[in-house]
Amino acid sequence: MHTQTIAATPGSATPWSARPTEPLSDATLELVDGWWRAANYLSIGQIYLLDNPLLRRPLSREDVKPRLVGHWGTTPGLNFLYAHLNRAIVERSQPMIYITGPGHGGPGLVANAYLDGTYSEIYTDITQDDEGLHRLFQQFSFPGGIPSHVAPETPGSIHEGGELGYALSHAYGAAFDNPDLLVACVVGDGEAETGPLATSWHSNKFVNPAQDGVVLPILHLNGYKIANPTVLARIPEDELLDLMRGYGHKPHAFTGGFDGEDHAAVHRRFAELLDVVLDEIAEIKAKAAAGDLTRPKWPMIIMRTPKGWTCPPVIDGKQVENSWRSHQVPLSSARDTEAHLKVLEGWLKSYRADELFDATGHLVAELQATAPVGHLRMSDNPHANGGLLLHDLRLPDFRDFAVEVPVPGGSISEATKVLGQWLTEVIRLNPTNFRIFGPDETASNRLQSVYEVTDKQWNAEYLTTDEGEHLARAGRVMEMLSEHQCQGWLEGYLLTGRHGMFSCYEAFIHIVDSMFNQHAKWLKVSHEIPWRRPIASLNYLLSSHVWRQDHNGFSHQDPGFIDHVINKKAEIVRVYLPPDANTLLATYDHCLRSKDYVNVVVAGKQPAPNFLTMDQAVAHCARGLGIWEWAGTEKYREEPDVVLGCAGDVPTLETLAAADLLRQHLPDLTVRVVNVLDLMRLQDEAEHPHGLSDRDFDALFTRDKPVVFAYHGYPWLIHRLTYRRHGHANIHVRGYKEEGTTTTPFDMVMLNDLDRFHLVMDVIDRVPNLGSRAARLRQRMADARLEARQYTREHGEDMPSIANWAWPDAGNLATGIGAPPRGSSVVATGGDNE
Amino acid sequence: MHTQTIAATPGSATPWSARPTEPLSDATLELVDGWWRAANYLSIGQIYLLDNPLLRRPLSREDVKPRLVGHWGTTPGLNFLYAHLNRAIVERSQPMIYITGPGHGGPGLVANAYLDGTYSEIYTDITQDDEGLHRLFQQFSFPGGIPSHVAPETPGSIHEGGELGYALSHAYGAAFDNPDLLVACVVGDGEAETGPLATSWHSNKFVNPAQDGVVLPILHLNGYKIANPTVLARIPEDELLDLMRGYGHKPHAFTGGFDGEDHAAVHRRFAELLDVVLDEIAEIKAKAAAGDLTRPKWPMIIMRTPKGWTCPPVIDGKQVENSWRSHQVPLSSARDTEAHLKVLEGWLKSYRADELFDATGHLVAELQATAPVGHLRMSDNPHANGGLLLHDLRLPDFRDFAVEVPVPGGSISEATKVLGQWLTEVIRLNPTNFRIFGPDETASNRLQSVYEVTDKQWNAEYLTTDEGEHLARAGRVMEMLSEHQCQGWLEGYLLTGRHGMFSCYEAFIHIVDSMFNQHAKWLKVSHEIPWRRPIASLNYLLSSHVWRQDHNGFSHQDPGFIDHVINKKAEIVRVYLPPDANTLLATYDHCLRSKDYVNVVVAGKQPAPNFLTMDQAVAHCARGLGIWEWAGTEKYREEPDVVLGCAGDVPTLETLAAADLLRQHLPDLTVRVVNVLDLMRLQDEAEHPHGLSDRDFDALFTRDKPVVFAYHGYPWLIHRLTYRRHGHANIHVRGYKEEGTTTTPFDMVMLNDLDRFHLVMDVIDRVPNLGSRAARLRQRMADARLEARQYTREHGEDMPSIANWAWPDAGNLATGIGAPPRGSSVVATGGDNE
Repeated sequence: MHTQTIAATPGSATPWSARPTEPLSDATLELVDGWWRAANYLSIGQIYLLDNPLLRRPLSREDVKPRLVGHWGTTPGLNFLYAHLNRAIVERSQPMIYITGPGHGGPGLVANAYLDGTYSEIYTDITQDDEGLHRLFQQFSFPGGIPSHVAPETPGSIHEGGELGYALSHAYGAAFDNPDLLVACVVGDGEAETGPLATSWHSNKFVNPAQDGVVLPILHLNGYKIANPTVLARIPEDELLDLMRGYGHKPHAFTGGFDGEDHAAVHRRFAELLDVVLDEIAEIKAKAAAGDLTRPKWPMIIMRTPKGWTCPPVIDGKQVENSWRSHQVPLSSARDTEAHLKVLEGWLKSYRADELFDATGHLVAELQATAPVGHLRMSDNPHANGGLLLHDLRLPDFRDFAVEVPVPGGSISEATKVLGQWLTEVIRLNPTNFRIFGPDETASNRLQSVYEVTDKQWNAEYLTTDEGEHLARAGRVMEMLSEHQCQGWLEGYLLTGRHGMFSCYEAFIHIVDSMFNQHAKWLKVSHEIPWRRPIASLNYLLSSHVWRQDHNGFSHQDPGFIDHVINKKAEIVRVYLPPDANTLLATYDHCLRSKDYVNVVVAGKQPAPNFLTMDQAVAHCARGLGIWEWAGTEKYREEPDVVLGCAGDVPTLETLAAADLLRQHLPDLTVRVVNVLDLMRLQDEAEHPHGLSDRDFDALFTRDKPVVFAYHGYPWLIHRLTYRRHGHANIHVRGYKEEGTTTTPFDMVMLNDLDRFHLVMDVIDRVPNLGSRAARLRQRMADARLEARQYTREHGEDMPSIANWAWPDAGNLATGIGAPPRGSSVVATGGDNE
Repeated sequence: MHTQTIAATPGSATPWSARPTEPLSDATLELVDGWWRAANYLSIGQIYLLDNPLLRRPLSREDVKPRLVGHWGTTPGLNFLYAHLNRAIVERSQPMIYITGPGHGGPGLVANAYLDGTYSEIYTDITQDDEGLHRLFQQFSFPGGIPSHVAPETPGSIHEGGELGYALSHAYGAAFDNPDLLVACVVGDGEAETGPLATSWHSNKFVNPAQDGVVLPILHLNGYKIANPTVLARIPEDELLDLMRGYGHKPHAFTGGFDGEDHAAVHRRFAELLDVVLDEIAEIKAKAAAGDLTRPKWPMIIMRTPKGWTCPPVIDGKQVENSWRSHQVPLSSARDTEAHLKVLEGWLKSYRADELFDATGHLVAELQATAPVGHLRMSDNPHANGGLLLHDLRLPDFRDFAVEVPVPGGSISEATKVLGQWLTEVIRLNPTNFRIFGPDETASNRLQSVYEVTDKQWNAEYLTTDEGEHLARAGRVMEMLSEHQCQGWLEGYLLTGRHGMFSCYEAFIHIVDSMFNQHAKWLKVSHEIPWRRPIASLNYLLSSHVWRQDHNGFSHQDPGFIDHVINKKAEIVRVYLPPDANTLLATYDHCLRSKDYVNVVVAGKQPAPNFLTMDQAVAHCARGLGIWEWAGTEKYREEPDVVLGCAGDVPTLETLAAADLLRQHLPDLTVRVVNVLDLMRLQDEAEHPHGLSDRDFDALFTRDKPVVFAYHGYPWLIHRLTYRRHGHANIHVRGYKEEGTTTTPFDMVMLNDLDRFHLVMDVIDRVPNLGSRAARLRQRMADARLEARQYTREHGEDMPSIANWAWPDAGNLATGIGAPPRGSSVVATGGDNE
């Protein structure tokens, strides 16, 4: 395969050079026009033609596809840019990738990749001749063929064009740490109305002009959406220029192709503008190389061309070119009416394909020669197939960062802070291909030790008071208060072959639900495309989770991202709920080594007990779930009376506290505690690659004993995951219930009935024949709960006996938050001490 | 209650008047300062004090709350604005509401509502005296008390401050159709970085200056987020002004309170600026009243004040005021250290509360007199408790819009188009309190008949070619290509007492997952607050659904919004899947009459058969689900052999086709068809108000017969909803499987194994003892499926016998897409005709 051996920087490029000094000749521009016509022709062919690709015979109705799908409107503009960028690449040896926000213009990108040869290299059945053209046309948006949008199947793309809003974020993600790369990013004026796009212009405050590549935004105003004009095409020119200046850019406005403007003139004007812009960029890059890292006013282009440019201006008496009517398929009845068939034939012929393709159907040599070669082709730039460039991270041994756990519960840590210490070393060892993204929460989520070795990359203004605030022109931490931006940057960074993670408040990760969907779909499809190489996983670290919103309350409580995620393909998604610091370390090490997944890790940032030594943690992570024997009271060779399941740090703590109460007060009851770290293990092995066999599941949870399960999120998910299990009817789940605000940790678990007292009551309710002692204990649990509630209402904090509860074996070994002596248990002091 | 009788426009206001001509006196400004000091004092009191509210005795450690939660940083700025806006309201009798994007500043809004009396009117235990102050302080962010953010509990608010990004969208939603209302909207510089906020500035292109109210955006730059400077505070002033001009505003920049600037000077400068701005608005309004409806350059204010303004500048040697350190609680150890206690006491005393409150603890009369009265108080403006202003819609009889259904399947309709005809009449009858919001899809989703009576409201530029494009300065349809904007506008519109709906592509509604969460939480909490009146439901119409993405493919396929929605409180959410046009009409009539719900309605826009007459549809909607006897083959007094369940239009069609095949080929098999329209009916009655009793469920689905269920979305949801049912283990569900792109309708159902052939095979696999005839049929189903697949691969469209399949009774009565004669069934023609 041609992709086997490549360098990180393609070819012998000398990026950021000025163009050769000879003037731009008409001959060169004619070739640019030829390429454009060829790309337009092939785009229309894909949308319309089932056969007769080069019109070697008169067009017949049967040559036309029965179902016309695809989008013409944006395509000629995309093709125009592609042709012009090709010239610049060749003249300047400038590595470049092309991001098409208006991804509906899929036929255009396919056409260009076909013209420059990449398409046939990758899809060897789509040859560069009549027969290949026939297949190229037929497969487009056809059952079993390729999608109508830019997609993973499209060579040169890292950006699916279905859902709008993320083109610039992806572009900047691709540019970070790729100092030689130019990312040409077309922003459609429809997309420009979306929120994520509207804020992504500010990405330029986060770019380092020396160490990062360059994004050239091209705002393509063709004026219309599906059925409306666009906002940015309908504000006065001075407002639009102000807007772009306000975003920090130097805008260059270009209008071409209207009122029958001669194409040669349009080409010349645009080519000259592009040279000006690229020279400005070269100048900025030279300055940066000389040490000036302050934020320049990066150039950008506003390009106004007619929507549907070069299609028949008027069809059936209605304006089509330069109207929303050319958004999809301007001509819908070519198979049904002779009149439309003629219009289509005339339209196709207007591109003079006979000048563009030779007798075999191959692009004529003269045009072929204008394309960049090898990896300088935008369709073959390895950055757009990032797995080709991926280097595994150099990972420090996470075991070296272990916290001491003399006995279960015998020490206290902030789990994410411990993770931060390991991440600090990860950053030190991988200074150019790993970044942490987050809205404003790296320190809030306790990862602040990373600032010992890096800073937050910031290229807006500085004040003298910023000293010591860890802001720098270059840094591995990217913080902007937009989850969309963080996700988009990270996706762009990963898709171009690097590594990273997204640290976010749990509740607000829903802001990127839809972006996650699209990335998961991208990964799913890429899996099925042999030439797409695996990329690093997208790793979430969700902290400030639902159970600890002491500062914030109801609006900050939502554990539903997990539910959202598991609707996507099982081979893509992984969900981990490490119960303590060592398990979090082992989990994240695994995540940063993995490829092509989305890993969702939920972990607490508040001081909490550690339960497992590092050796135990490694084993627990490897199993993904397991019996915590030390917490249970099982007898040799007997099944327990009840299983306490738990997943998530707070539910695990409550479960252990419940186990403690049961051990004290119902000593004859045999209890098993099962902790679930890898949530996907609960599923059937047929449902998920991590799924347990029924036999293994039964061995842990029994086939018929009651299971009381305390879960981090919405309880239904556990039922969903265990739906096919033998014992599923016996599983009782407690989790988050959308019950509103509160401000102390134990009050929060009480509000949702996830507290230790409820768990004990659940056991008593479900294990048969426990007798009167259990009945009395049940009553006392209810009383203890009321007492605890009353205490928070009076004092504004949790009862010390609850806040400081520690696993009994932990005794006085606990550090940090002191563990009280055993006798202080809220129930043991209740009087009726059995 | 004071809220029983009120007019839509509060009091005898004469909005948009200029202020009285007498100059702004120092005495007036001193009173503004007094109000500000009082509000600041009460804000700090809420965050810190458990007792001793007016420092009648020296502050002791026990007076300080043990857990300090809340956000000081943004609060003094919010209080400053509130005090100044109060003056303007009084002088101009201008009805105004106050939207606080930085909603973390909850203590400030509570403080102001307390000062102007509303708080004590609503919460009668929080009296205006020492004791009331004690309770006011204690309840703040305290277990069982009120949240730390602006929330439904906060009088005068329609905007929860937890998740950032939607302040301006909410503000514009409130302003639409409220011509006399001024919406003062504070945008925090943190929030300004979010995507939704970044695009919401463009709302001004959608405002009609005569018929709508006015939004006054106040960009409050206090410079810092949790741990970072903000982008907009760190770009050069000229860029910031350009940005605001680019957004279409006339920016007024104000900087105050830095470097020890005298407060009196700050007040004077700001008050004068505010008067200039309000005069500019009055002028625009006067012009509009005189007929000039072109988009003016609306003024906005950029207000720079120090973060944490008026708190101790330096604590423990570290800069706190004007630093991110004042974001939450600037002083954290007042309960623990004498030094911090003294700092806190000094800080509190700096506001000179003894001048502000009298001996009883009541605000001094002089200050009290400066507040607006009655509904002119921003905290008591009825627009901020929209249910007070809500009028039921005048709804045309949906029965008049019924489609004819001579026999089941006997006619063809585009369901949403039929709905559009009814909505057209809804709009005609409700010209000022109903709007349709959508990204760009009102026509695409086939609601275009509404343009017979209204237009798309558009106040950007017009071209001569816009003639006939249904754009107008005033119109009931609001389209901008931002789902965030549509959702935010609609929420603001509903929360201020009007009605509306959001028409969206199904896949992309996930873009607003997080906004839905927050709105559902708002409704849930509002339910529990007696003074919050019910508001109109938020109605989604999701079309272009997962099964009909012929044009678009994988990126446009996601039915998971339903899964997302049902994690919220059952009393809030409703999900409807009407199977045809008449049921869609009846469903939507119900939705537009309902209050305080989120109604999710998924309906197709493509031509599809109608199954129920209007009378049947009304009955079916009332039941929410039911047996379609005409489709089954049950025998009198016997349970069927198998139940075919279905929910969603495409799954219903496939189910009926399967029932047809079974009837033809296994005539002895008794089949029941149950269609589910109201998805929540599947749940247990204890889980959801719509839930069926077990007895009713069993009567429909049986306790033990196999159920083959064809569902619109991810199959797990049906398992989740029926989890507690007797027969749940017998329910086999087919639904969407994330299988990637395709371009014909039947190919799509085949790709997901939801096709009629699979359903028949499922029945054969699950009903015992069907014998060899069934085994042969099973084989033929598999063959028919392969044949159908092969056909699409060759022809790019579905086999006519499948595409044109019609329910047999429909015979030749079908209109539109012709129903073939019975013999054309793909299986019947297969040769082995039994």
